[in-house]
Amino acid sequence: MTDVLELAKRLISAPSVTPASGAVFDAMEAMLAPLGFAVHRFMAGEAPDGPVENLFAIRSGPAGSRHFAFAGHLDVVPPGEGWSTAGAFEPEERGALLYGRGAVDMKGSIACMVAAVANVPQDAGTISFIITGDEEGPAIYGTRALIDYMRDQGHQPDLCLVGEPTSVQRMGDMMKVGRRGSLNIWLTVEGKEGHVAYPHLADNPIPRMVAMLADLAALELDRGNDWFQPSNLEITELEVGNPATNVIPPRATARLSIRFNDHHTGASLSELVGGIAEKHGGTALPIISGEPFLTLPGEFSAIVARAVQAETGLDPEPSTTGGTSDARFLRAVCPVIEFGLINATMHKRDEAVAIADLYALSRIYTAIATAALQS
Amino acid sequence: MTDVLELAKRLISAPSVTPASGAVFDAMEAMLAPLGFAVHRFMAGEAPDGPVENLFAIRSGPAGSRHFAFAGHLDVVPPGEGWSTAGAFEPEERGALLYGRGAVDMKGSIACMVAAVANVPQDAGTISFIITGDEEGPAIYGTRALIDYMRDQGHQPDLCLVGEPTSVQRMGDMMKVGRRGSLNIWLTVEGKEGHVAYPHLADNPIPRMVAMLADLAALELDRGNDWFQPSNLEITELEVGNPATNVIPPRATARLSIRFNDHHTGASLSELVGGIAEKHGGTALPIISGEPFLTLPGEFSAIVARAVQAETGLDPEPSTTGGTSDARFLRAVCPVIEFGLINATMHKRDEAVAIADLYALSRIYTAIATAALQS
Repeated sequence: MTDVLELAKRLISAPSVTPASGAVFDAMEAMLAPLGFAVHRFMAGEAPDGPVENLFAIRSGPAGSRHFAFAGHLDVVPPGEGWSTAGAFEPEERGALLYGRGAVDMKGSIACMVAAVANVPQDAGTISFIITGDEEGPAIYGTRALIDYMRDQGHQPDLCLVGEPTSVQRMGDMMKVGRRGSLNIWLTVEGKEGHVAYPHLADNPIPRMVAMLADLAALELDRGNDWFQPSNLEITELEVGNPATNVIPPRATARLSIRFNDHHTGASLSELVGGIAEKHGGTALPIISGEPFLTLPGEFSAIVARAVQAETGLDPEPSTTGGTSDARFLRAVCPVIEFGLINATMHKRDEAVAIADLYALSRIYTAIATAALQS
Repeated sequence: MTDVLELAKRLISAPSVTPASGAVFDAMEAMLAPLGFAVHRFMAGEAPDGPVENLFAIRSGPAGSRHFAFAGHLDVVPPGEGWSTAGAFEPEERGALLYGRGAVDMKGSIACMVAAVANVPQDAGTISFIITGDEEGPAIYGTRALIDYMRDQGHQPDLCLVGEPTSVQRMGDMMKVGRRGSLNIWLTVEGKEGHVAYPHLADNPIPRMVAMLADLAALELDRGNDWFQPSNLEITELEVGNPATNVIPPRATARLSIRFNDHHTGASLSELVGGIAEKHGGTALPIISGEPFLTLPGEFSAIVARAVQAETGLDPEPSTTGGTSDARFLRAVCPVIEFGLINATMHKRDEAVAIADLYALSRIYTAIATAALQS
């Protein structure tokens, strides 16, 4: 049974709020095994960010053949309230749409991948599935653990396609060839508490914090480049926590979020911000969520673009905008591109996919896999 | 019984954490009535800032004589923990000191006032006591209500001495001839919430708040004058309340405390800050706690200085520093000066007064009242 609509319904039917394990992986294994895949499932990590279920499946082609990987996640964000259907995990066809949590992000895409490989002959080359149960959560023991496993087992894909819903208005209008890096920095300025009537006996940390933040807000990190928009720094939090109107507080804290392109690294930005903090007598604690990456447009993006164009007539824009994804990890393995369904309803109630898009994406994935294995 | 030490002990023995009423006022009334004072006690105000007990006592001199007023408060701040005595409201003599909550702020001073008037003959002139049970609290229905009562009854002092503990190192080293005004301003900048990866869809209020606060921190309000130190603006609070590292928050708030001299009024500063807030797209909500005042050094301050010098050998510095007091209200009635005990232990555990200072201050108050009635 490789009808993509049925596959999608079967995956949606298995509740899998992040971190996912069990039934939804059983369903996935049951789909891949009949197609000739050797399926390896394993749990990784410990509390609080684990354990997490992961699945690596591979169908080997002839010796020396190319290896193409599909990657994605079976966990979904919580359904929230107010669905117009019987339930977020009760897939429902209504008119041209299929409703259900994960319809586009990304059980729908994974169903398309499975349906796609059913149409790729085994002797075309090696195909693998890199599927985690924790992409929407901390993502500490998800795709990273799969990459460790693959390296240990000697599985080295040549190209990898991540099935994130990259399309915006119409399926096919955008693919992701990179992602910005992401960095949070906690800033602290210490002072000396006192009474507002006697400021000479105190040291108010707030003016120094304000001057520091003014310097940071005025930074032009870069102007972007051909592939990336300019890096962006947002101040996301200020906190003093002083209820007393007549007290000069002892401490001020703030938090930054920086989304940055390949002009920088997490380390270079941490050093830049740390220097500005130090200049104002403050300290900076950076936590890097991900480094930027770019799969320079070339052969792989041309393969994706041709497959998309043949099916949809659209030339997908090679973009690096938006949030982060597990492609930030997979880029260390091989060139990665993300392409998938329309993301308009992802993470929302009444998440839905056009049923026609499922069939179209399945054909696109077949074309991409076929071409990638010949490249 | 007009021994100042016994009077002070009797007042301290009546617990009177702000707002005070009942027993401590009973004790006060029992002291004043035998000295020929007509005592009027009344409750003012309603919840949440009332009711508050107040006491006005007057002993009239010959027709047409001068009217001198002592002013003060019988409420005290909470005792807190860790007293080395049997209890904050169990007055204890230990060596040269008398311990107890209110020993200096300002039951000790009030005992000195009572002992002082016992030594001023009734025909010297009219003497009154303006005593509230709420100076350490909101002070909405305390001295303000007493001023209303006096106006209604036609009692108009010519000069008023407030018994706040103004001395710093040695009793007599400082009197207060004025006080700065006090103003708190709440600042808000509204923006539009969004995801840090899509800043163009959001409007981060924090950079505008930071720019506003940088402008405010850079203000030089004035350089002070002969009698006042420069006005001072402190940023006392920052608050955004955004726990999510990937969210641009919808709102930022901050709070200012301004202590200001007679170059300004609460209204003029509210307008100044409001204009700066508006320039950055924010709003300012001012609450004025008190306007500045100055009893220009002259005859009254000379009376106080001579009395202090005769007893202590010190020439009290005419200061306007420090926090606020009920003198901010009484200045509307007549010239006001504040002079009292050493403030080192006020509001602290083991609040204590040198017993010798009680006797000395009692003599100083007698001299001030006598000279004031002759002025």
